[in-house]
Amino acid sequence: MNQTSNPAPVILLLSGPNLQLLGRREPEVYGTDTLEDHVRTATAAAAAAGFGLEHTQSNHEGDLVDAVGGAVGRVAAIVINAGALSHYSRALQDALAAFDGPIVELHLSNPYTRDAWRQSSVVAPVADGLICGFGGLGYRLAVEAAAELAGG
Amino acid sequence: MNQTSNPAPVILLLSGPNLQLLGRREPEVYGTDTLEDHVRTATAAAAAAGFGLEHTQSNHEGDLVDAVGGAVGRVAAIVINAGALSHYSRALQDALAAFDGPIVELHLSNPYTRDAWRQSSVVAPVADGLICGFGGLGYRLAVEAAAELAGG
Amino acid sequence: MNQTSNPAPVILLLSGPNLQLLGRREPEVYGTDTLEDHVRTATAAAAAAGFGLEHTQSNHEGDLVDAVGGAVGRVAAIVINAGALSHYSRALQDALAAFDGPIVELHLSNPYTRDAWRQSSVVAPVADGLICGFGGLGYRLAVEAAAELAGG
Amino acid sequence: MNQTSNPAPVILLLSGPNLQLLGRREPEVYGTDTLEDHVRTATAAAAAAGFGLEHTQSNHEGDLVDAVGGAVGRVAAIVINAGALSHYSRALQDALAAFDGPIVELHLSNPYTRDAWRQSSVVAPVADGLICGFGGLGYRLAVEAAAELAGG
Amino acid sequence: MNQTSNPAPVILLLSGPNLQLLGRREPEVYGTDTLEDHVRTATAAAAAAGFGLEHTQSNHEGDLVDAVGGAVGRVAAIVINAGALSHYSRALQDALAAFDGPIVELHLSNPYTRDAWRQSSVVAPVADGLICGFGGLGYRLAVEAAAELAGG
Amino acid sequence: MNQTSNPAPVILLLSGPNLQLLGRREPEVYGTDTLEDHVRTATAAAAAAGFGLEHTQSNHEGDLVDAVGGAVGRVAAIVINAGALSHYSRALQDALAAFDGPIVELHLSNPYTRDAWRQSSVVAPVADGLICGFGGLGYRLAVEAAAELAGG
Amino acid sequence: MNQTSNPAPVILLLSGPNLQLLGRREPEVYGTDTLEDHVRTATAAAAAAGFGLEHTQSNHEGDLVDAVGGAVGRVAAIVINAGALSHYSRALQDALAAFDGPIVELHLSNPYTRDAWRQSSVVAPVADGLICGFGGLGYRLAVEAAAELAGG
Amino acid sequence: MNQTSNPAPVILLLSGPNLQLLGRREPEVYGTDTLEDHVRTATAAAAAAGFGLEHTQSNHEGDLVDAVGGAVGRVAAIVINAGALSHYSRALQDALAAFDGPIVELHLSNPYTRDAWRQSSVVAPVADGLICGFGGLGYRLAVEAAAELAGG
Amino acid sequence: MNQTSNPAPVILLLSGPNLQLLGRREPEVYGTDTLEDHVRTATAAAAAAGFGLEHTQSNHEGDLVDAVGGAVGRVAAIVINAGALSHYSRALQDALAAFDGPIVELHLSNPYTRDAWRQSSVVAPVADGLICGFGGLGYRLAVEAAAELAGG
Amino acid sequence: MNQTSNPAPVILLLSGPNLQLLGRREPEVYGTDTLEDHVRTATAAAAAAGFGLEHTQSNHEGDLVDAVGGAVGRVAAIVINAGALSHYSRALQDALAAFDGPIVELHLSNPYTRDAWRQSSVVAPVADGLICGFGGLGYRLAVEAAAELAGG
Amino acid sequence: MNQTSNPAPVILLLSGPNLQLLGRREPEVYGTDTLEDHVRTATAAAAAAGFGLEHTQSNHEGDLVDAVGGAVGRVAAIVINAGALSHYSRALQDALAAFDGPIVELHLSNPYTRDAWRQSSVVAPVADGLICGFGGLGYRLAVEAAAELAGG
Amino acid sequence: MNQTSNPAPVILLLSGPNLQLLGRREPEVYGTDTLEDHVRTATAAAAAAGFGLEHTQSNHEGDLVDAVGGAVGRVAAIVINAGALSHYSRALQDALAAFDGPIVELHLSNPYTRDAWRQSSVVAPVADGLICGFGGLGYRLAVEAAAELAGG
Repeated sequence: MNQTSNPAPVILLLSGPNLQLLGRREPEVYGTDTLEDHVRTATAAAAAAGFGLEHTQSNHEGDLVDAVGGAVGRVAAIVINAGALSHYSRALQDALAAFDGPIVELHLSNPYTRDAWRQSSVVAPVADGLICGFGGLGYRLAVEAAAELAGG
Repeated sequence: MNQTSNPAPVILLLSGPNLQLLGRREPEVYGTDTLEDHVRTATAAAAAAGFGLEHTQSNHEGDLVDAVGGAVGRVAAIVINAGALSHYSRALQDALAAFDGPIVELHLSNPYTRDAWRQSSVVAPVADGLICGFGGLGYRLAVEAAAELAGG
Repeated sequence: MNQTSNPAPVILLLSGPNLQLLGRREPEVYGTDTLEDHVRTATAAAAAAGFGLEHTQSNHEGDLVDAVGGAVGRVAAIVINAGALSHYSRALQDALAAFDGPIVELHLSNPYTRDAWRQSSVVAPVADGLICGFGGLGYRLAVEAAAELAGG
Repeated sequence: MNQTSNPAPVILLLSGPNLQLLGRREPEVYGTDTLEDHVRTATAAAAAAGFGLEHTQSNHEGDLVDAVGGAVGRVAAIVINAGALSHYSRALQDALAAFDGPIVELHLSNPYTRDAWRQSSVVAPVADGLICGFGGLGYRLAVEAAAELAGG
Repeated sequence: MNQTSNPAPVILLLSGPNLQLLGRREPEVYGTDTLEDHVRTATAAAAAAGFGLEHTQSNHEGDLVDAVGGAVGRVAAIVINAGALSHYSRALQDALAAFDGPIVELHLSNPYTRDAWRQSSVVAPVADGLICGFGGLGYRLAVEAAAELAGG
Repeated sequence: MNQTSNPAPVILLLSGPNLQLLGRREPEVYGTDTLEDHVRTATAAAAAAGFGLEHTQSNHEGDLVDAVGGAVGRVAAIVINAGALSHYSRALQDALAAFDGPIVELHLSNPYTRDAWRQSSVVAPVADGLICGFGGLGYRLAVEAAAELAGG
Repeated sequence: MNQTSNPAPVILLLSGPNLQLLGRREPEVYGTDTLEDHVRTATAAAAAAGFGLEHTQSNHEGDLVDAVGGAVGRVAAIVINAGALSHYSRALQDALAAFDGPIVELHLSNPYTRDAWRQSSVVAPVADGLICGFGGLGYRLAVEAAAELAGG
Repeated sequence: MNQTSNPAPVILLLSGPNLQLLGRREPEVYGTDTLEDHVRTATAAAAAAGFGLEHTQSNHEGDLVDAVGGAVGRVAAIVINAGALSHYSRALQDALAAFDGPIVELHLSNPYTRDAWRQSSVVAPVADGLICGFGGLGYRLAVEAAAELAGG
Repeated sequence: MNQTSNPAPVILLLSGPNLQLLGRREPEVYGTDTLEDHVRTATAAAAAAGFGLEHTQSNHEGDLVDAVGGAVGRVAAIVINAGALSHYSRALQDALAAFDGPIVELHLSNPYTRDAWRQSSVVAPVADGLICGFGGLGYRLAVEAAAELAGG
Repeated sequence: MNQTSNPAPVILLLSGPNLQLLGRREPEVYGTDTLEDHVRTATAAAAAAGFGLEHTQSNHEGDLVDAVGGAVGRVAAIVINAGALSHYSRALQDALAAFDGPIVELHLSNPYTRDAWRQSSVVAPVADGLICGFGGLGYRLAVEAAAELAGG
Repeated sequence: MNQTSNPAPVILLLSGPNLQLLGRREPEVYGTDTLEDHVRTATAAAAAAGFGLEHTQSNHEGDLVDAVGGAVGRVAAIVINAGALSHYSRALQDALAAFDGPIVELHLSNPYTRDAWRQSSVVAPVADGLICGFGGLGYRLAVEAAAELAGG
Repeated sequence: MNQTSNPAPVILLLSGPNLQLLGRREPEVYGTDTLEDHVRTATAAAAAAGFGLEHTQSNHEGDLVDAVGGAVGRVAAIVINAGALSHYSRALQDALAAFDGPIVELHLSNPYTRDAWRQSSVVAPVADGLICGFGGLGYRLAVEAAAELAGG
């Protein structure tokens, strides 16, 4: 977790498995922007709303659960694109359920036009809202929404 | 359909059954804003992006199908909150599938925290993207997304 | 909606698709009485309990949703035989859920002795009570029950 | 079975498991009236229609099956609130199927707003009609319906 | 409903939602002929068999239910392409079940090679026969079949 | 349990709910013979094979479980027509599983031509064999089979 | 089909796939008797009841369908152990449904104690009765039952 | 396969199990015409469209698979009434999928008004179109459709 | 119900069908201790915690429902091993739901390593806790837990 | 079955329906090699391992069942590509279950990337191992595996 | 893994994801005790039974699998509260299945009164016993049970 | 990941959870060879085909996802035995889907003869081919296949 101590309230952006490959993996589905591009977009949107932004990417479910656990009482909101873990990580669901601020679920593509198993999310029942299908634009929208819900 | 002839490209906002009751119906779920409030939000967001906004609300599936059919080749994008019809109106799905511009599905609440039947949408497979759970804020986000997808 | 302005509190009787055919359609299932006969029965039962009775029949889901929406805050109770819409109209379910008085679901026949799809109702979860299988007698019983629940 | 020999035709009221607890068990669901209160209501309604009323309550499936078997050819109609047995007692279903008069299924609450397993009934397919959700009022309505079906 | 009074017996052709878009909507699935082309084909086939032809298209379920209800005792046969309503309109199924003449279900494409939800029809159980997958030719075959079943 | 002390090995015939009504209940399904007729047939078949026959009929699951429990180590074989309990009495299944001799399941009618719920049996997995569909003849066949399996 | 012309009425015994292996295949399930042993048992039982017996074994579904088709109007009853085809051959089901005499389904073992797929039979819904689990004894019982049903 | 060498392009008519019994088997379902009658109808319709007609009937799945395999590159179109095999013969499905001309599935009755298992077809996903429910008339319609699809 | 009047608060131990056979029935699953042995263990554990212990065993669902109904307001806690009734007795579930003290569900074996039908319990949703798989030791643990929950 | 008497132990290669079309049927799925090419590959691999190879192809399930039945006690191992029969032929499964040597299931393509019905196999539960997705190479791998399992 | 080398046999206590949050996370469900409190309880119970106690908590499935793998042949028993991983970690199930000592599954709350997905456990089929619903008391009971099973 | 830099193209062998226990864990299922034995076999087979071999084993899903992500554009082919993760790790599936070379799925045992949950694989839909059931021999076959698919 690369975190700068900043006095402004913080939005935590979490990226799940294989998102480190963005720009290279199935660009016809996920676009040509890299994860770094999206983090830049999110950071700018957060700053515009008066928030700092932390980002953690991991292919390990446990790292994401650790990060959510560590965010309790410290972070203003979470934006999470959990990748494939969105569809089965009950451990992540439990961690998010214990978080005390707003949570926005984010996907680059629209899962409802893809495989059947991508059409149910275990993150959704513990999220406040969901944004999907807008590619990189989604990062801006999700951070705006998280900031507004957090009273930013 | 109350439509003003405007030279700017148009985003069509469609509102399904019972949305005329907003502000009065289950305010703990749907908030206290009225549909008119949301339309004002959407109109402002569209104008900011260089678009006009048309709005149609109906409790009749057929009216919504008519409206989508009449939008083909004339309207730049559709934002649709189809209410309960989101979950079974295959006729609406077929109509939207025949539309040639971007489509954004919108819900005020997060259906994944509610009844089981609200957790599948027949609109989703023909939409480009989905925004839900953000109350009135969703109208601004959805119009922004539609405008961006429409190249507005 | 043929409504007489009456000072007494009103019970709204709603009749769904194909009920206009009563007396002609499958009389071995639905009996030989016409819808008008049943409305007369209901009106008499309502009057006996100190209520007026309004009746709306339509083959259009949207008309019924309109009628329920228009009943909020104006009508004391609803008795509804939604016909086939009972089994899939989530729009009607949402409308009824927003109604603030008692609701009685009514069927002429006992759906549990008929097709599988008639054995689940989307009206039932938002109704206070259910009466089915008693033919025309059901209209009297349902109005009596609605009146009692409405404190008539 | 506490049965008085009476010359008038008889309606048999059957009460299944745990109904002896009425008034004490989950009063927010089942109300504060006792079973004796409901039997009094039913007896009065039967008398008004020219019928006697027998009542049997048991927590034993076999007792209810015995009672139905003993009613064949002797009793004019059955009103049955089989409690939890409504949802799985195929033995009771078979017994009722062999009964030669009208059968009315009765529930105090509306099972369609409760647990999933309460939403299917094995009594319903062999009943003529169903009344539920009206609390103690249901006893009067059910007896009236049974009497009418029995030509009382 | 545009109906000419003609002394010859009449076949009623019903067209469901979105069929007004034929020729423009997904031509690789539905072909380039318009609905008017198909109605001309059907009218010619009816005339050749000694029948007149009425045609009603609507995006409203209620309009189709109205039309079927109005056909009872007046029309010799029904040919129906109910579009997406084929897959969920139990109200239309009930209306057709009450019709007293032969019913032919028609689809331009073969639904069994398409989405899962298109592979069950609520019209089929109340139709006499089914013709699908033959594009515009199906209109001629369906009218011939309806005429023959009607003893034309 | 009406049991005569006899020196010959004994076959226990068990009859479940509603079988006391045989001859009167749905004779087109179950025939006109009474249960006494069938017991006579079974007793004769047992005697011919060198066995005595005990018979117990009850509408109470617990009575049948008691009877099976009391048969362990005392009775040579069981023939059981458990009626409707065949389809859900796991308590009876457990009791039979603890019996140490052969078990023959018997039904008068062929359940596979009847209701869906009659097509699975919880007795079958703990029975050695099954005979159904032969009416009264089945009693003779079942006793013969039980006797042979018991080495009679 | 090895058939002797005999003046007595005939029972047709049909044996499905792999039964030619009896005595060698899984003897702990099917016993050590060969198919010839079982045919001898069946022939003797038929003779005792005044019937001749024809036997056909084939691993080809089509041969069994041919045999049933050829039995219509010529043979008094069918006893069939269709082996694995019992569980999926709808063609055999259709053939048996067209047969005009009694049909007895037979299995050596009790399928309800074996694989899940052996627990549904497409023969059962068109059979008059079923005997299973008695090994070679079942051949005698099945022929006796068939003879009795055929009025032998 | 009884095939005459003819210079005209050929339509292959395939008939599955038990169709040799037509006219004798369940005439209330399948009518009184024999298979020969239907082949005559089909042959006439083919000739009228400028095609020859070959016919193969078999109760053996393998024979039908052979026939389809032998039709590749030689026959202009296939009309197939596969009888019960329609519902499970994946081998036949694979064979038809490898055929390079149009395929019309045909049934005498409307399977959607019959047993549940008749309501799914493994032929349908590889057929161009489907005609059912018109009895003998279906043979003429199916051949006309096949001829048209084959450009005859 | 063998109950001694004792001034100490009482824990009610309920034993369902076939438990009277313990020590004789499938000892490789249930062990060699008898039910009396287990009751002694439970009584000692109760005494150690300052409670008396009542025990009721019955093969009759109704007896257990009676016992629970009679325990309301009189008994401090219930420990229940309902045997096979655990898996389907909704009447017992309803009775336990009406009990006002803590409830501990107990099984000798671990049902999750056994038949599928043993893997769901209707007792579990109304129990405070569950102990299974520890044989006779479970009786001590369950009574300790019940006593602690009852504030003993 | 074209079999040369050879003193070396024999591997039986079985090919199911439609495999005779290889090289012509859907070459993008199955490749351009013919079945003869694959048999040559298999024969060479067998010879290299010290085995002879027999090959049987048939579109008839019964032929394959016959072949397996005839292999018992005579053949060292079976390699089987049962084509579409892999997915439903319980008769073939039973035959293979009775075979006393190793069995290798083989498919040219990977069924898990194709239709849902191709993703379950009734051969797999009775095979020792499975090889799929390697086209013609699979024949060499499968024969090598069979030879090794057979101790060749 | 914080492990002290102790000569006494060891019970391994494993804690899965989010249990590090105990005392802070949903205290109305999980209580106010921290994980450290529970470990103290468990250590004391182990000591009382003559065992040492090791404890490992991790949010990483792999850490738990590592820990179980490292326990084989070294540790006397395992008590495991796998948190959300209980419901889907087949890797953990496989690891536990390879462990050679007793295993006790533990949950603080009763999962059968919570979400549907918490009602199946992949740990249960490889555990000897299960204790749930007793909060912190469960730690003492589970360690006592593990010690007894381990012959401590 | 223990990787030697070698100029030859590389096949990556991935081993999932618990495979480090091979030789000790359930040897009757998985054999007595250790993972090191299998890696030696694979390395030899790779060398024989002109490939180097890298091997990674981990009990952590994230490690395997990392390894696949790091293989893109660097490694010629992947052979993967993902152990229990084969059945639910959608993250691993996504990672493999993004790999640009051939993928061979490998299992030591035949999962289709084991638990139900082992009979679906989330690896299979993104693998080119599958080899299972051949124990250690599978490592040689899988590497040969991967090499051939990679054009080695």
